[in-house]
Amino acid sequence: MHKSRLAGFIIDCNTPQLQAAAQFWGGALGMELRALPGEEGDKYVRLIDPQERLHVEVQAVTHPSRVHLDIESDDVEAEVRRLERLGARRVQQVHTWWVLEAPTGQRFCVVRAESRGFAADAHAWP
Amino acid sequence: MHKSRLAGFIIDCNTPQLQAAAQFWGGALGMELRALPGEEGDKYVRLIDPQERLHVEVQAVTHPSRVHLDIESDDVEAEVRRLERLGARRVQQVHTWWVLEAPTGQRFCVVRAESRGFAADAHAWP
Repeated sequence: MHKSRLAGFIIDCNTPQLQAAAQFWGGALGMELRALPGEEGDKYVRLIDPQERLHVEVQAVTHPSRVHLDIESDDVEAEVRRLERLGARRVQQVHTWWVLEAPTGQRFCVVRAESRGFAADAHAWP
Repeated sequence: MHKSRLAGFIIDCNTPQLQAAAQFWGGALGMELRALPGEEGDKYVRLIDPQERLHVEVQAVTHPSRVHLDIESDDVEAEVRRLERLGARRVQQVHTWWVLEAPTGQRFCVVRAESRGFAADAHAWP
């Protein structure tokens, strides 16, 4: 048995100006920015949801801008296999996560569970 | 003064098979489906977040598949003007909402506030 749930979303921005993109989205969504340490900070800025509902980041990317969803799981491989049975396909493994593509074409990621409340609130799959 | 906050997201699916798309996404995210009444049900299926964090729907569209964010406000026009000052541009008014485009290219919507907790939790803009 493993668990998963929606972790949040990443706002992928095709721009060399990550800080300007993060400032727009933070202002638009009413979320404060939090810089991330080290190399992570070159590509990502965290947006802090004041209601702590979701994990939200702005990412500098080289593909077209979009928004992608993140699913978090305590067993990434088992979750990817479950999603494949639903019709998703694997695109690429990146560090500890997998990029998948839905039958309807959107790309999304399966990442390791890190959010507070995950153990209590995530859906358990037999 | 008006208020706004992130309401949720819409999973736009370029497909004639709305029900199949909703079943994939409901299964992927661990969210139950709720059919919507009347003509709304021809284009949208609601996904029920068990933690009631966000408003989520799957929408059948004719443009390419994507995920778009919804910002809710008690004053849609004032919120659109605020977002224009941040750098967004108006694309199209649809019924009671506005489609905008971010400086980084993602389209998103400003909709009338309907969620529980909005009055208490939304960000107040001077």
